[in-house]
Amino acid sequence: MDGKRAEAFSDGVFAVAITLLALELKVPGGEGPLAHRLLEIWPAYLAYVVSFLSIGIMWLNHHTLFNHIVRVDRLLLVLNLLLLMFVAAVPFLTEVVGDELGEHMRGGDATTIMVAYGLLMIAMSICFSAIWWYAGHRRGMLDARLETETVRRSIPRFGLGFVAYVVTTLIGFVSPLAALILFGLTALYYAFEHLPAARELDADAGPGAG
Amino acid sequence: MDGKRAEAFSDGVFAVAITLLALELKVPGGEGPLAHRLLEIWPAYLAYVVSFLSIGIMWLNHHTLFNHIVRVDRLLLVLNLLLLMFVAAVPFLTEVVGDELGEHMRGGDATTIMVAYGLLMIAMSICFSAIWWYAGHRRGMLDARLETETVRRSIPRFGLGFVAYVVTTLIGFVSPLAALILFGLTALYYAFEHLPAARELDADAGPGAG
Amino acid sequence: MDGKRAEAFSDGVFAVAITLLALELKVPGGEGPLAHRLLEIWPAYLAYVVSFLSIGIMWLNHHTLFNHIVRVDRLLLVLNLLLLMFVAAVPFLTEVVGDELGEHMRGGDATTIMVAYGLLMIAMSICFSAIWWYAGHRRGMLDARLETETVRRSIPRFGLGFVAYVVTTLIGFVSPLAALILFGLTALYYAFEHLPAARELDADAGPGAG
Amino acid sequence: MDGKRAEAFSDGVFAVAITLLALELKVPGGEGPLAHRLLEIWPAYLAYVVSFLSIGIMWLNHHTLFNHIVRVDRLLLVLNLLLLMFVAAVPFLTEVVGDELGEHMRGGDATTIMVAYGLLMIAMSICFSAIWWYAGHRRGMLDARLETETVRRSIPRFGLGFVAYVVTTLIGFVSPLAALILFGLTALYYAFEHLPAARELDADAGPGAG
Repeated sequence: MDGKRAEAFSDGVFAVAITLLALELKVPGGEGPLAHRLLEIWPAYLAYVVSFLSIGIMWLNHHTLFNHIVRVDRLLLVLNLLLLMFVAAVPFLTEVVGDELGEHMRGGDATTIMVAYGLLMIAMSICFSAIWWYAGHRRGMLDARLETETVRRSIPRFGLGFVAYVVTTLIGFVSPLAALILFGLTALYYAFEHLPAARELDADAGPGAG
Repeated sequence: MDGKRAEAFSDGVFAVAITLLALELKVPGGEGPLAHRLLEIWPAYLAYVVSFLSIGIMWLNHHTLFNHIVRVDRLLLVLNLLLLMFVAAVPFLTEVVGDELGEHMRGGDATTIMVAYGLLMIAMSICFSAIWWYAGHRRGMLDARLETETVRRSIPRFGLGFVAYVVTTLIGFVSPLAALILFGLTALYYAFEHLPAARELDADAGPGAG
Repeated sequence: MDGKRAEAFSDGVFAVAITLLALELKVPGGEGPLAHRLLEIWPAYLAYVVSFLSIGIMWLNHHTLFNHIVRVDRLLLVLNLLLLMFVAAVPFLTEVVGDELGEHMRGGDATTIMVAYGLLMIAMSICFSAIWWYAGHRRGMLDARLETETVRRSIPRFGLGFVAYVVTTLIGFVSPLAALILFGLTALYYAFEHLPAARELDADAGPGAG
Repeated sequence: MDGKRAEAFSDGVFAVAITLLALELKVPGGEGPLAHRLLEIWPAYLAYVVSFLSIGIMWLNHHTLFNHIVRVDRLLLVLNLLLLMFVAAVPFLTEVVGDELGEHMRGGDATTIMVAYGLLMIAMSICFSAIWWYAGHRRGMLDARLETETVRRSIPRFGLGFVAYVVTTLIGFVSPLAALILFGLTALYYAFEHLPAARELDADAGPGAG
């Protein structure tokens, strides 16, 4: 069984989850002018942008990862399903992040939700690393052009992402808003600083390669 | 007409249904601290996980099954549509399972919903077996590498899944929580103990095959 | 530009629309036992089944149609978009059908919604025929193996489907329930009695063709 | 990394966003006859049609654009993600457009929402142009058959679309209804008056090319 259909199914879940994020946006009712009510929920827009980038870039890296996987087994598919289970839960927590951060701006406490959101990011990061680690340790799962050494060296870099998420989650105790922005920046960072193995293969292919 | 597009369409329905599961998660309002309200709905999370695994692994096996189907006819497509009709209904019942199980933990009765949920699982299992049985009995539908004998021997194994769902549904009368957990474990079991025919073909292909 | 990507996009819309149907199912609140409340909304389940079959079989025939289309132009894509616009609206009206038919069983009037539902079906049928007619009249759009005569002869058959929808809509004035069931049966009929051109090509390919 | 999977993922987001539009349609409750309540929300239907056409034709042009892109890099993927972020937000604003335009017909003010809607269209138009501009200025990203001159000449035409959206947004200050209809007409215009480069390649391929 090759990974192409698992990837197509995962792409579907990523695409649906990322689009459902906007379903959670709701203009508050009330008597004020619409412009005010539209702007009032800016924390919900911020949460939308951060979660959109997080899922989008998680998809990007998922896609890169599966490009290197030439064969899948059932355990890998179950690990992948676990990752998707957390991805699909992002819209649910994103809505609460928007609501609670709005409350926080009016004096409430948004620590709880930022910790919950951070734990969800950490859970995704663990699943992602587990897939990469597992694929790297089973014979014949990864593209033969990848050197075992390259794969092993890349594991700590995943650990770095894990540490970034943990630190950001802790920052949520001090400033939930700063934590949310940091989650967004972490996503952007991972858009460009991706799997070294992937970069090596890309470099091999050279500029202009289709 | 080959089965590739039917499979792509089915994948779409599976991916949307599995992602919609999270839409049913709703943090209860009220005055309590958010941490308490987030944890209070643990039965909804459990129902989410069990339904996610059930749909996910149903997808996995659906995918394996369609890998063996080289030609489809209209009746098979209608049977497949029937299966998808039940799959798409899983988020609807999952929400009620979460709600009612929450009530059950506070002394209510969750038997009705577990029976309804069990019947839905049984309906999916019947449709799935019907597709396999029908494909196995029409000339030219299954991959020629599959021996008729192998296919026929695999039918009772589907029956076993059917029996597991019926027994779990009956357990729902005694303990709805135990039944829900058992549905999750059954899904996990089917992640690894899948179509024997599929395993045979996989074995033929040998380790390392792309 | 070939039709493959238009088909993939359409498949996506069909798959999302068909799965969203279940989102409209809502167990009524209230004091009664859950079993009663679950069964009480049987008209909503019936509407779900009929709309699921209608969209599903519309997809089947859409897929068959696009199998014969080897080249698309912008007008055809806009016609296809129009068809999808009506398909995506089916969940919206299906929810109202379920509600109103439930009211009807308690003495209310469900004529309006059945007429609206019928008009939606008629609109889909018109768009579908328009795509087929347009593709058949532009040089190089249809598979060269299709004889012009075959295509032209198939147009009246589409007209038949149109008449069936109009008659069923009119029956909605007498019995909304009968009309809903007839819409379901019409869908099933079209699952098996499909494009004659398609059947001819299938016959050419012969049994066992991949 | 080629653009095929980025395109498939984008197609998924487009398909989900376009289908979610209908989820925002809600028949108002109340005592009046259903026919009246169904017709009363005609501004919501109009907003549905305009947004459906806008997303649908944005997809069409996105598809044409990616047909010319033979290689993608991370920055292009992030630009594409930004475009999708605005596309996914269309259903959210479309619902408000329908509501506010309904209020407007009863004497309220719909300027705010039409400006917000216009800004969203402008944001999509900017992202779209940015992708095209960036792809045209990086060596090896576009199909070699495209002349650099052709690409550069096409940039102003994108600027034209941008101007059309700005003007329409300004018209929203005078007549929100006229602005909404103009957004729909602009979408239809772009269905037929598309990328000149694309037309040139199509012309090269000649009539009847598969």
